[in-house]
Amino acid sequence: MPGPVQAIERAAAILRLLARGSGRLGVGEIAASLDLAKGTAHGILRTLHGVGFVEQEAATGKYQLGAALLHLGTSYLDVNELRSRAINWADALAARSGEAVRIGTPLEGNVLVVHHVFRPDDTLQTLDVGALLPLHATALGKVLLAYDADLAATAQRSELASLTRRTVVNTTALTRALAQVREQGWAAEAEEFMPGEAGIAAPIRSYGGLVVGAIGITGAVERLCDGRLRPRSELVTHVRNAARAVSRDLGAGR
Amino acid sequence: MPGPVQAIERAAAILRLLARGSGRLGVGEIAASLDLAKGTAHGILRTLHGVGFVEQEAATGKYQLGAALLHLGTSYLDVNELRSRAINWADALAARSGEAVRIGTPLEGNVLVVHHVFRPDDTLQTLDVGALLPLHATALGKVLLAYDADLAATAQRSELASLTRRTVVNTTALTRALAQVREQGWAAEAEEFMPGEAGIAAPIRSYGGLVVGAIGITGAVERLCDGRLRPRSELVTHVRNAARAVSRDLGAGR
Repeated sequence: MPGPVQAIERAAAILRLLARGSGRLGVGEIAASLDLAKGTAHGILRTLHGVGFVEQEAATGKYQLGAALLHLGTSYLDVNELRSRAINWADALAARSGEAVRIGTPLEGNVLVVHHVFRPDDTLQTLDVGALLPLHATALGKVLLAYDADLAATAQRSELASLTRRTVVNTTALTRALAQVREQGWAAEAEEFMPGEAGIAAPIRSYGGLVVGAIGITGAVERLCDGRLRPRSELVTHVRNAARAVSRDLGAGR
Repeated sequence: MPGPVQAIERAAAILRLLARGSGRLGVGEIAASLDLAKGTAHGILRTLHGVGFVEQEAATGKYQLGAALLHLGTSYLDVNELRSRAINWADALAARSGEAVRIGTPLEGNVLVVHHVFRPDDTLQTLDVGALLPLHATALGKVLLAYDADLAATAQRSELASLTRRTVVNTTALTRALAQVREQGWAAEAEEFMPGEAGIAAPIRSYGGLVVGAIGITGAVERLCDGRLRPRSELVTHVRNAARAVSRDLGAGR
């Protein structure tokens, strides 16, 4: 078995670095951040430039992500089976619940949004596809954590960021919450990610029952929850029905 | 100056290969397509798997693009200045023209769609961001070809695919059409890309007048063109005004 190819790992690390923060970095900053010799960083950047994975700002010489990545990213969506099986059910869930729908899958200790249906009203909304959301503070993320022991172990070891005054930042409390998710088969959060917002999500399963993602709704806390911040049962039912329908299409029952 | 790093170029070639066709390939198919030893291809694929750039289908062992690329692709959009400067003008153009708006930039001999505003009606439309369109058969592409001599030279050397019975496939005719685009400052096509559809586009310029992209509308040929398939002048004016406004924001006049 050949070992991992160091140059490719370093190239990937540079791309991840450019995907963070302001998005534009000089070769010196990149080399320092990744503890690489400047010549090594420069050689990798020139190659990434040649294949269109990075671009160079004319005025400053700084590097940023390149256009070829956009095409690869949307090509990923085209072959993503979870997303293609879920699109119709996500539309139906948005129509039934009257709320925005997102489908998420784990990526690098976060929830990656692979599909997003806007809330069916005329408000201006921003497409979240490709965005990363925190695992511990979203309903989608809690579902992924509840059914993935490795992911949960990593989350327990890392510091849980406090995003609102209701975010669960205590690992014992999170463990308890995840046990409850497994018991009831769905997850919810109320103002743990954003003040005024709540979310409800349920697991999407593939062959053999393996949880491969989560589908959920988010919206104003007063619409999703009752006065005691408990999710409304009819919305929970809509979310769970959608999750079951997608799972069936993915072959979970077979 | 260090030379390009071969392993990274090969990794990029594998990703481009997976972005084409069905999107799922075995290690043998990948090695054969790129003329690599199977062990070399396997080592690169394992590394790409480790960094989340490819995923492996459990049932078949075949490789497909990975979730990390989606996040990098959307992060590219966040730092893309052309897109961020153009978003408001694109919305205004869609509202004024009543048609779908796209913004494109060149990528690998195609037009890469970096922004897409739906036609302002209630019809079901698919987001085209990240899609590649042919240069010679779209109004966006003709603009990019008209103002980029290298791009035009490459297009002249390659075979021009016939997409409809109206596609310009003769290189002399294309050269003439591009000269006209430069003369009038905008491009149009009627049923050259899709039967029943037409497009109008104009160049977006950056510092020093350099053309960095194109903005345009597409829609039903009977709405965009008169009975002789000539674009309606009021729509041409809307498109050109939008292009000038974006260019101004990008510093073209400075």
